[in-house]
Amino acid sequence: MEKDLQIIELFEIYKSLLTEKQRDIFSSYYYLDLSLAEIAEPEGNTRQSVYETVKKVKAKLIGFEKELKVLEKEQKLLSVANRIEDKGLKQEIKEIIGR
Amino acid sequence: MEKDLQIIELFEIYKSLLTEKQRDIFSSYYYLDLSLAEIAEPEGNTRQSVYETVKKVKAKLIGFEKELKVLEKEQKLLSVANRIEDKGLKQEIKEIIGR
Repeated sequence: MEKDLQIIELFEIYKSLLTEKQRDIFSSYYYLDLSLAEIAEPEGNTRQSVYETVKKVKAKLIGFEKELKVLEKEQKLLSVANRIEDKGLKQEIKEIIGR
Repeated sequence: MEKDLQIIELFEIYKSLLTEKQRDIFSSYYYLDLSLAEIAEPEGNTRQSVYETVKKVKAKLIGFEKELKVLEKEQKLLSVANRIEDKGLKQEIKEIIGR
């Protein structure tokens, strides 16, 4: 479950680098909490092909993070921001990283 | 020229999302300052195909930045970091964003 929460954070960061179909299937699976069969049926896809897409999207998201480290940097910056006394500057950093 | 400097910054951030061939051609053109003809010849490519690749890579880099805004955020964070009095925290932020 912990791992899945991180995947959703990665999706929020990198979703624009996915295709529309990949975004739709991932959202249906993780946000709407539909089953693989429920996602597959309306589009005439197979459960297996939806499963493969979810697996591929997860691998892509992890790959983007491995290369760009946006989430890792955001988390480190948030930790620094929380140690800054000046409330204005702390807030500015949080707004830049969207947290 | 100003625009080209920004393209190099974008390349440094997003190069891992390019193919090896795209990286090689872009580096030869921008870092080694080779002409399109000089890049094309050893590989038996045409000047035109190298030109198209450079143009495509520039468009991709600009597209990545439009979606992810890593450079824009780094620049904003650097500006905040420079206003933090605590030298340790300032340094931590600069190290996280690699500046």
